[in-house]
Order: sequence, then C-alpha cells, then structure tokens
Amino acid sequence: MRQAQARIETALAQTLARVQQRGAPPRLGAAVRHAVLPGGARIRPLLCLSVAQACGDRFPALSTAAAVAIELIHCASLVHDDLPCFDDATMRRGLASVHTAYGERIAVLTGDALIVLAFETLAAGAACTVSPSAGDDAAPATEALRALPTLTAILAQRTGMPGGITAGQAWECEDSVVLPDYQRAKTGSLFAAATEMGAVAAGAEAAPWRAFGERLGEAYQVADDIRDAAGDLQRLGKPAQRDAALGRPSAVAAIGLAGAIDHFERLLVHAQAAVPDSTGAAALRALVQSESNRLLPADLREHALAVA
Amino acid sequence: MRQAQARIETALAQTLARVQQRGAPPRLGAAVRHAVLPGGARIRPLLCLSVAQACGDRFPALSTAAAVAIELIHCASLVHDDLPCFDDATMRRGLASVHTAYGERIAVLTGDALIVLAFETLAAGAACTVSPSAGDDAAPATEALRALPTLTAILAQRTGMPGGITAGQAWECEDSVVLPDYQRAKTGSLFAAATEMGAVAAGAEAAPWRAFGERLGEAYQVADDIRDAAGDLQRLGKPAQRDAALGRPSAVAAIGLAGAIDHFERLLVHAQAAVPDSTGAAALRALVQSESNRLLPADLREHALAVA
Repeated sequence: MRQAQARIETALAQTLARVQQRGAPPRLGAAVRHAVLPGGARIRPLLCLSVAQACGDRFPALSTAAAVAIELIHCASLVHDDLPCFDDATMRRGLASVHTAYGERIAVLTGDALIVLAFETLAAGAACTVSPSAGDDAAPATEALRALPTLTAILAQRTGMPGGITAGQAWECEDSVVLPDYQRAKTGSLFAAATEMGAVAAGAEAAPWRAFGERLGEAYQVADDIRDAAGDLQRLGKPAQRDAALGRPSAVAAIGLAGAIDHFERLLVHAQAAVPDSTGAAALRALVQSESNRLLPADLREHALAVA
Repeated sequence: MRQAQARIETALAQTLARVQQRGAPPRLGAAVRHAVLPGGARIRPLLCLSVAQACGDRFPALSTAAAVAIELIHCASLVHDDLPCFDDATMRRGLASVHTAYGERIAVLTGDALIVLAFETLAAGAACTVSPSAGDDAAPATEALRALPTLTAILAQRTGMPGGITAGQAWECEDSVVLPDYQRAKTGSLFAAATEMGAVAAGAEAAPWRAFGERLGEAYQVADDIRDAAGDLQRLGKPAQRDAALGRPSAVAAIGLAGAIDHFERLLVHAQAAVPDSTGAAALRALVQSESNRLLPADLREHALAVA
C-alpha cells in the first residue's frame, strides 16, 4: 500500500514535469501543479493499482498510467466544481482553491488541461508498454495497444456523457433528480473506472470489477454527504454544510444523518461482497475496511449520531 | 469537398446521438448539440480529411474519427472562450452562446464533455477500423491500433499543455506575451493537429505535414483579427471589435490593419508552399485558395484597407 502510494506520487510528479517544460504559460503551469500536488488520499488511483495487482499487474506502465489518468480527471473535476458558478469554494485540501489562487479563467483552463493530460497519459502508457519478455527496444506490446481503446472508452464514459461525472454534475442543473442515479454518476463513476481500468490494464475483463467500484463509490459519496453535514472545516479542509447551503441533492437531506450512516455501512458490506474471487481479494477487502475507518472515523460517527 | 462536408456532418451527428441516449441529463445533452450543430465552416475537420485523402485514406473510419475529434475540441474551446470570465460573448455562429442559452454551469460542463468525447471518438475509431482486406468480424487492424497512441498524443499536445489551445488561451492571463507564440498555440495548434492527424490516420508520417497546418492556422488567426477589427456583427455571427475591447493580443493591434492584411497574404503563400508533394497536393492548394477567399473576401479586404 505504501509502495503503491509512492508509485502514484512519483508518476503524477513525472507527468506534471513533462507538460511544464518547453515554455508552458507560467500561471497555468503553477495552477496545474496546485490542483494535483499535494493531493488528497489518492483513493481512486490506489484502487486502480490494487485491482491491477489482484489481476497480476502484467503491464505496470499501463496500470500506472491508468491510475494517474483517473486521478487527473478527479483533480480536474474538483477544480471545476469549486468554480464560483458551482460550489464557489474558496478552499480545497486545506489550501486556496485554484480559482481563488489563480483566478477563474486559469481555473477553467486548468480543468481543461488536466482532462486532456489524462487521456494523453493513458495513451503514452500504452505506447511505452512492452511485453515482459521483450527487450528494451521492443515495439509496444500488442496486448497493451489492444487495451488502449477499451481503457479510453471506460475513462471517457465514466467522465463524460451520458453517465460520467460531468453528467452527474449536470444533474445538479436539472429541476428534478433521482438521487442514486446522480450519486452513481457523480462519484460512483470514477470508482467504477478505477476498478474496471485496473483490471483491463492487467489484461483482465472489466465487467466483473464494475459492481465493486460502483458500490465503493456510492459509499464514498454518502460518507462525503455525512462529513459535509456533520464535519467541520478543520477536518475536511474545505467548508462544511455546503450541500444544504446550495440546496444540493444529498443522502443526508433525503434520509437524515442516522439513515445515511446506516446506508453507508450497508454499501461497504455490499462493496466487500462484490470483490471478485482473485489472489488479491483479501487485500482489497482490507483496503475497503481501512477506507471505511478513514472516511467515517469512530469519533465523527458518534458526533454525527449525536447531532442526528 | 461537398462529399467530405457530408461525411463530417453525418459523423458528428452520429457521435452526438450516441452520447445522448441512455439517460443523459437533458439540459447538458441539449447544450452539447447547441455547441456542435449547426456548425461553422468545419475547416479543421475538412483539412484533416483532405490530408488523409492526399495520403491515400486507407482507414476512413479512423480519419473520420480524427476529423470529428478535432472539431469537438474546437467546439469545446469556443464554449469555454465565450464564458463570462473570458470573452463574455453572448452570441456565437449567429445564435446565443451556450452559457447565454443554458447558463454558465452547463457551459463549463459542455466544454468538459466535448473534450472527453473527442478522445473517446478517436479511440472508438481505432477500435472499429479493420484492414481493408479483412472480413466484417475481423479484429481491429494492428496498424490502426498502433496509430492510436500517436493520434491521441498529437490531439492532446495541440489541445492542452504546454503548447496547445488551452495554453494559448492561458497566455491571455499573463502580463506579457509573444504574439506569434500565442497565435501558434491558440489557433495554429488545431490546424497543425488537423494536418498531422490526417496523415497519421492514413498511415503516413505526421512531421512533413506540420508546417502546412501551422502556417494555415496562423493565417486563420490573423484573418480572425482582421475580421474582428473591420467586420460587423452580421458578417461574423458574433460581436466585432472584442480584441480591442478586451485588450487582447492581436495582429491588428501589433502591426495595424494594413500590415495584418499583408501578413495574412504572405502566410497563405507560405502555407501553399509547405504542402508536401503528394497526389492530393493540387487539391490542398485549391482548398487554401478557397479558404483565403472565404476568410477575407474582396469586399471586406477593401473595407479594411479603407478604414486602415
């Protein structure tokens, strides 16, 4: 786990360094770094690598690229979600949000540049993947090249239209919204992308891994709703009680704080049950358990139930 | 040419139809259509297909996908450029701009969704490309799969950081800017993407086609500056004299209207000279000539020189 964390941070730093050489506009370059480094828990890329490892991780360059691509999309979505026209959030991860630090125009462009960089990174990962048995100057492994359209399709569908995080965010602009659909699109999407892409990047099938990612993503969104309703600025690194202030759909608004905690715990049980049989299944269930404790620590759980 | 136009419009319509089925948020779906259909001159995708044809166009599904991807990126950039924090443009192509019609939040998401869709379309094009000699149920042609990382890399570099249109736009947020660098990034980029990707999608090398696209793109930006300074709303389909109003770098501001017209004409000569020898070279030079007349018609040229 600590090894996977290091692999992700190193790859993210290398990816950013690559696009910041050769005369990038300085403020955009700085804003892109601000958006990505230092990061949050990196749970989506960790999940991606963990699933790749459970599936044998035959092409580490490809699974690393997939993990980085997912995190870049996540960072892009945070930058755009924080914009004045959406959440109007001045803080993120304990620092000024990108538009607060660099202005609204640079924030729009930072999100755009990160989305582009995600797909670029994925393709570069496939292009530099050689068969484990080949020499250093071998052509890209055909299997990695065959995986690229699938990986790109998954990332695109989980990011864009009609059911990705962009669509999830767009549901907030509709008069009526079906809460599970909204949550599945807004947060579940990238978790499903993480498990599916981890499998495909290791040469396995995506489908068996979908439910695990979707359940975990739903649980994460519900935990976010609970933390938003019950947490405080210090704990979250961003202002609390924004959902209610913005009239945004949330599990707490729909079923109350106690109901949301109950729902969160059931979703985690479902997520663990959805882990396909594999050599890494036990490690993945342990990852879910540790995330559960991180997302909703005992003291916050008690505090939430007390104010419920 | 008319055949290529039809091929582009059909492919764009099919691409949009695909993402609008299966429960997309209705307003985002409508805004995405509004941003893409009906379009402008489609010069970038036309250029892409023309170069592919000059190179033999062996994989029409792939060159069509490349052309569509470039146009989707172009449309995304227009939607984001029109936002209140940038140009604050209420009209585009003679209609309300996306944020005017659907609000700022949907406009941000529309741009995001279109960027994602561009990369998705490119990958889908590679995945459905079979060798001309293969049967209907053949696996994707290895050559098309090998082209995908290159095509994705070109599109990403011409769109994002450090030198794509996103970076070009970001130069507007810097205190000082080198005009040719800015123009090359902001407009030249997607023209270079068009010629390079047209070549690669047909199995040819990108490099010989770069200068042609870059010169044409520069000419296009200079023509845009001239039209902005000398044109009127009716002709442009968008408000004129925005560059001066926004204090934006422009060829007219730098070298005057007469100087800009002279520069435009020299860039077109350079563009025609940069067309590599190929069976389609004459057709490409004719395309440049007809674009020249469209971009700066004789009456606008005379009007501009009169007010210069």
